[in-house]
Amino acid sequence: MLYDSIGATDSEWAGKPYAEIREVADSDGSVLVVPVGSIEQHGHHLPVATDTILVDAVVHGGTEQAGADVPVLVTPTVWTGFSPHHLSFGGTLSLELDHLRAVLEDVALTGIQNGFDAVCFVNGHGGNAALVDAVVSTVGTETDAEVLGTTYFTLATDEVGALRDSEDGGMAHGGEYETSLMLHLRPDLVADAAKREGTLWDEHYEWSGGDLLDGGPVSVYRSFDEYSESGAIGAPELASAEKGARIYDAVTSELAALLVAIHEHNA
Amino acid sequence: MLYDSIGATDSEWAGKPYAEIREVADSDGSVLVVPVGSIEQHGHHLPVATDTILVDAVVHGGTEQAGADVPVLVTPTVWTGFSPHHLSFGGTLSLELDHLRAVLEDVALTGIQNGFDAVCFVNGHGGNAALVDAVVSTVGTETDAEVLGTTYFTLATDEVGALRDSEDGGMAHGGEYETSLMLHLRPDLVADAAKREGTLWDEHYEWSGGDLLDGGPVSVYRSFDEYSESGAIGAPELASAEKGARIYDAVTSELAALLVAIHEHNA
Amino acid sequence: MLYDSIGATDSEWAGKPYAEIREVADSDGSVLVVPVGSIEQHGHHLPVATDTILVDAVVHGGTEQAGADVPVLVTPTVWTGFSPHHLSFGGTLSLELDHLRAVLEDVALTGIQNGFDAVCFVNGHGGNAALVDAVVSTVGTETDAEVLGTTYFTLATDEVGALRDSEDGGMAHGGEYETSLMLHLRPDLVADAAKREGTLWDEHYEWSGGDLLDGGPVSVYRSFDEYSESGAIGAPELASAEKGARIYDAVTSELAALLVAIHEHNA
Amino acid sequence: MLYDSIGATDSEWAGKPYAEIREVADSDGSVLVVPVGSIEQHGHHLPVATDTILVDAVVHGGTEQAGADVPVLVTPTVWTGFSPHHLSFGGTLSLELDHLRAVLEDVALTGIQNGFDAVCFVNGHGGNAALVDAVVSTVGTETDAEVLGTTYFTLATDEVGALRDSEDGGMAHGGEYETSLMLHLRPDLVADAAKREGTLWDEHYEWSGGDLLDGGPVSVYRSFDEYSESGAIGAPELASAEKGARIYDAVTSELAALLVAIHEHNA
Amino acid sequence: MLYDSIGATDSEWAGKPYAEIREVADSDGSVLVVPVGSIEQHGHHLPVATDTILVDAVVHGGTEQAGADVPVLVTPTVWTGFSPHHLSFGGTLSLELDHLRAVLEDVALTGIQNGFDAVCFVNGHGGNAALVDAVVSTVGTETDAEVLGTTYFTLATDEVGALRDSEDGGMAHGGEYETSLMLHLRPDLVADAAKREGTLWDEHYEWSGGDLLDGGPVSVYRSFDEYSESGAIGAPELASAEKGARIYDAVTSELAALLVAIHEHNA
Amino acid sequence: MLYDSIGATDSEWAGKPYAEIREVADSDGSVLVVPVGSIEQHGHHLPVATDTILVDAVVHGGTEQAGADVPVLVTPTVWTGFSPHHLSFGGTLSLELDHLRAVLEDVALTGIQNGFDAVCFVNGHGGNAALVDAVVSTVGTETDAEVLGTTYFTLATDEVGALRDSEDGGMAHGGEYETSLMLHLRPDLVADAAKREGTLWDEHYEWSGGDLLDGGPVSVYRSFDEYSESGAIGAPELASAEKGARIYDAVTSELAALLVAIHEHNA
Repeated sequence: MLYDSIGATDSEWAGKPYAEIREVADSDGSVLVVPVGSIEQHGHHLPVATDTILVDAVVHGGTEQAGADVPVLVTPTVWTGFSPHHLSFGGTLSLELDHLRAVLEDVALTGIQNGFDAVCFVNGHGGNAALVDAVVSTVGTETDAEVLGTTYFTLATDEVGALRDSEDGGMAHGGEYETSLMLHLRPDLVADAAKREGTLWDEHYEWSGGDLLDGGPVSVYRSFDEYSESGAIGAPELASAEKGARIYDAVTSELAALLVAIHEHNA
Repeated sequence: MLYDSIGATDSEWAGKPYAEIREVADSDGSVLVVPVGSIEQHGHHLPVATDTILVDAVVHGGTEQAGADVPVLVTPTVWTGFSPHHLSFGGTLSLELDHLRAVLEDVALTGIQNGFDAVCFVNGHGGNAALVDAVVSTVGTETDAEVLGTTYFTLATDEVGALRDSEDGGMAHGGEYETSLMLHLRPDLVADAAKREGTLWDEHYEWSGGDLLDGGPVSVYRSFDEYSESGAIGAPELASAEKGARIYDAVTSELAALLVAIHEHNA
Repeated sequence: MLYDSIGATDSEWAGKPYAEIREVADSDGSVLVVPVGSIEQHGHHLPVATDTILVDAVVHGGTEQAGADVPVLVTPTVWTGFSPHHLSFGGTLSLELDHLRAVLEDVALTGIQNGFDAVCFVNGHGGNAALVDAVVSTVGTETDAEVLGTTYFTLATDEVGALRDSEDGGMAHGGEYETSLMLHLRPDLVADAAKREGTLWDEHYEWSGGDLLDGGPVSVYRSFDEYSESGAIGAPELASAEKGARIYDAVTSELAALLVAIHEHNA
Repeated sequence: MLYDSIGATDSEWAGKPYAEIREVADSDGSVLVVPVGSIEQHGHHLPVATDTILVDAVVHGGTEQAGADVPVLVTPTVWTGFSPHHLSFGGTLSLELDHLRAVLEDVALTGIQNGFDAVCFVNGHGGNAALVDAVVSTVGTETDAEVLGTTYFTLATDEVGALRDSEDGGMAHGGEYETSLMLHLRPDLVADAAKREGTLWDEHYEWSGGDLLDGGPVSVYRSFDEYSESGAIGAPELASAEKGARIYDAVTSELAALLVAIHEHNA
Repeated sequence: MLYDSIGATDSEWAGKPYAEIREVADSDGSVLVVPVGSIEQHGHHLPVATDTILVDAVVHGGTEQAGADVPVLVTPTVWTGFSPHHLSFGGTLSLELDHLRAVLEDVALTGIQNGFDAVCFVNGHGGNAALVDAVVSTVGTETDAEVLGTTYFTLATDEVGALRDSEDGGMAHGGEYETSLMLHLRPDLVADAAKREGTLWDEHYEWSGGDLLDGGPVSVYRSFDEYSESGAIGAPELASAEKGARIYDAVTSELAALLVAIHEHNA
Repeated sequence: MLYDSIGATDSEWAGKPYAEIREVADSDGSVLVVPVGSIEQHGHHLPVATDTILVDAVVHGGTEQAGADVPVLVTPTVWTGFSPHHLSFGGTLSLELDHLRAVLEDVALTGIQNGFDAVCFVNGHGGNAALVDAVVSTVGTETDAEVLGTTYFTLATDEVGALRDSEDGGMAHGGEYETSLMLHLRPDLVADAAKREGTLWDEHYEWSGGDLLDGGPVSVYRSFDEYSESGAIGAPELASAEKGARIYDAVTSELAALLVAIHEHNA
């Protein structure tokens, strides 16, 4: 439900009249951030909007920490991700890859028109990650603004790694990482402990990681129903709100530093 | 900002784990609602997300009034509309027509897969209206579910017409209608009275209305900067929160009745 | 069969050498009209080209009435419409929605290149109506010419409504309206009275009309074989050539007035 | 203008109610013919619809000669051709190549659905010829019906060659061939002799013919304004109605023989 | 395997650093050649890359014979052809038609950017031939360079015809023509005589040839498994290396003459 | 030049008749490898086909080492990469992103049809990397075969890192890594030492690496002419054939191990 939350922070594009948007865009070293999430099954203990909620929170946290001196605006989070590998469970709304590409290009290009010096996609869904990287190039060829892209859980991996209690594979889809963040940010949407179950997926190729912190050099397509009964993969039972708070701090700090660097590079 | 608002009402797809979504979808006469908004300039007194905020509010109001006996879920509002005619003002994020078509088709078709008996697009942006009607057909040819579409301000036009103080043309883009609804729902996002100015556009073709309540039989493409200095068209100065409350009641009641009828027809 | 009919009236693009076309296009306030029809089943009593024949006749009637002072040319009628909901009966040739969009855009844009000040699509098939409205916008963003679109049976609805003998629903697909027009214009192609049968479709949603004169605010996709045995919907048995003549006069008069208005607005 | 010519011959799809179309389609060895023309400049002496008029006439002539024993229907002529090389003159309405492909595929595939055993495109415009050949393959992969395509002026080239008075290059765009056919079929649309002028284009590569009767093994793209002042290429001054009648007989006889052969091969 | 063969001749684009490519492109009358092959079944006696090997050889032979005075570069051979009619045998890698179109356009247009005065596609696969002709037009509309296209076995057909031992139909897919060329150029890849078998396909329409040397005016789509057990069509048993050498000489001589003519026409 | 190199090794798809391809594909645990390269500027000292040559060599080396027990075939290397960031230098042939996606999908899907149990893309060009990852998913959703993808220089990064003499950034585009490999594999195509110059690019974001061995978590689009005068980035002057041999051994060993693992996992 959007109608009572839009406009809660000062960096939101959506809550402003157009003239204020142009003012930020005209500032020296202005940055446009486009968060990209998804709506897809996250096991029995997390809502389908988990990736959208988390990337939205991380982006607004990072923007806030970047500080008022950095002229930055955040578009509404693109919630229409690429998730064919989750469809069989239900609860998943997925675009075709090409259609997500078109959405990201159109949003970025019509946004940049306002005068931004840089645009940075911040993604929160593994299924979108390669496409976001690819779109950095297609948008880059169409604009003079600097174009960047990242997936938030590839940031601050050393700090987050130090916090983990699970072994490799425990911080996968709906596992210790995401469940901790949700317990910190939206505990009301996390099912009670009995439902926090995931498959620890340990038979993957050694070149192709089963963990958010370590993707490995080889991509493999997997329909999640071949690997998990609940839909979650990892160790959600090891999650805690306190760990979530620390992960949140680590990631938003690094994102803030990135935004400051982008601003300064383009000022 | 989405992270603290998702899951506020029981009819939201986004806040649920997947199994609960399938449960609603499996119910007899289940209905999926896809709200479609936009992010586009709305003059100096309204935020660019006005259409998204309003359609989101109307849909959740209508769904609530339809009552617990109607198994209905609402996807997150599609905020990426078709608004080329607003781009010159700034503040506008717009998809190409074809890309919006693809988004609506993908969201509806992957949503219906869960078992819904009907899907209804509810649109809140004039620029999307024809496309939403067209997509009803393309989705309709791909599914056995019943497919419908409407634009909320074409509902309850008699009741709303009786409430108006403006002459024809006053309830146009950012005019008496939308400003009243925003004063009722999100007064914090409406600029003070001095900024509520619109052009009363009275030189249009008689066949092509300049008012939300009366479109007329002829479509004309117009870039809004040819007609309005502020970007708004109509009479926002005649808006009031009280009128907004009555408009809201009229439209949500009719939408609720429509949802009940769809449910019953497909049960 | 085209080879002996092209060039019968002076407003036809097709029958002229190119230099004469450029001459009209260069005139002040010149208007290009693109009629859009379809080839799709129309019950047992009407030919599949009914919509193409009727929109072609209406457009040439309207153009003629607009008079020699209005510089206007009419492209050949686009007969490739969007009719997936009729395919199951047979006799239907249908484009995918996107392909019809492309055809209309290409025809309009290469036509406008000659120097026209305005282009107006005139549609004759319900299945095309939303798309024609949408294409008004996509063409509008690509040209400085004014772009308009209409569906002929939404014109002069008061006059036509006064002529009807059927109740609501009787002037639907192949019903009293279209059969009357065909009896006036091409009686040789109308089957005799015994075959003029349609289903009076009275169980539709109240928001979604079953009549050409009243579409209602809600679109619903319907495959026609769910509603009609013959393929026709409405009351063809109430049709008459005399009524057809009056409908023709009403609609062509209003179309002529629209063409004059477009000409004057752009002169 | 279509409204008074559709339905003039018994092999026209357009003039029939759907049940009669299915009846032909269900016959043993039934053939669907899709004529493909264009609207493009043809010099100062011929109308822009020349290719459409001629292919339409040839197809109906061929169909008639094939005789009543051959169950064949002809769709309306596709008049939206591919003519970018003529656009600079004016008078030309052209689709993008891909869009013409889509139209031909959709028309053929929805037509074949009625039960035809074969479909044959008959093209009348040089600019379409390669695409029509290519579409034979794309349609062929999508259907069990036999799919064929030809361009009418590649038929009976020996007989037509024997009739010519011009040297090589004289039977090019708007030259002796097409002007003769038009003088035979639609003399009212041919400008008087003073305007029948074309450039005899003799500097082309020897591998790339400048004549309808001899294309040569090499394709070259040429914008016609580089080669001709009037837009016509060839020797229209050598055209005559009598020659046109003989060409017409030769081509329609061969087309009839082809249709008979297709019918027999698929019966 | 490419890594040890790229750069073997001086006309290869692939083996040069970019500055040398620009130098050739900047020369007066420079020509870019784009060979187009395929990977598709060629019976039991020839490798699936036959068309790619042959067009590559012919193009380099022709280029060499054109001589050092003709500034020409050859891109790597496009091996991704259009071969749906061969898929059922296996061994075939095929693009959709539209995708091959896109590849040819992109390669030609990014190549021409370097400053070439002309580009010539040389095709070696029947299934690509119509598309290559069509792409000549789409590329032609996008560039000022001259654009040409040919299929090598349509060159020097008189000389080759004089060499043949087979009757009409014997020089078809994997028949006397291609097998001879392979015996001349890559005898190590031709299976021994016992495996050189093809179906002599003599029941085709008289308008639609079954021989590389005579296509006829009518295209027909045929899945090759309807006509041939081995996948080859024609008379491979009549092939010889000596005949292959003569065919190679005839075709490369004519191609060289064409390249010289293109160079001179654009110098 | 392809005509004398195809068929040099036993794992090449291209050099075999179709029946032998099916035989491999039918084997238990069969693997199809699709190498993906590019043609794009590589400074003054390397040929534009460097990425194509290297990935081709690596793939054949890896396949050979995997051994005869692993049923594997390698398609011809796709040389049409995505390189818009190199176009300004010249020498670059580039597809649009979407077109490369289509090529990879079509090649993989028509290849898999033969019966392979797995397909693995092996990429050699940084500009393709994200797309190859994305295509793993789109192909994965269309087939039951296992689908994988990797970029060869992300393999064996520890071993290669131990061999380097350059600091971070020295193993970038045309730098120490690629130049060493080329000196090992094709020294004849490497310009002499005087031309081996690259820019050491040390001002990039710390999150966005400038080295093949360390990409970093943030993607940035860069047109190479903003960073390098020669077109190369890194330290080619530190390259040596001996280092190239060791890099080749490290990478091909790891690729062989990956192929064995894929084979065993799917056997």
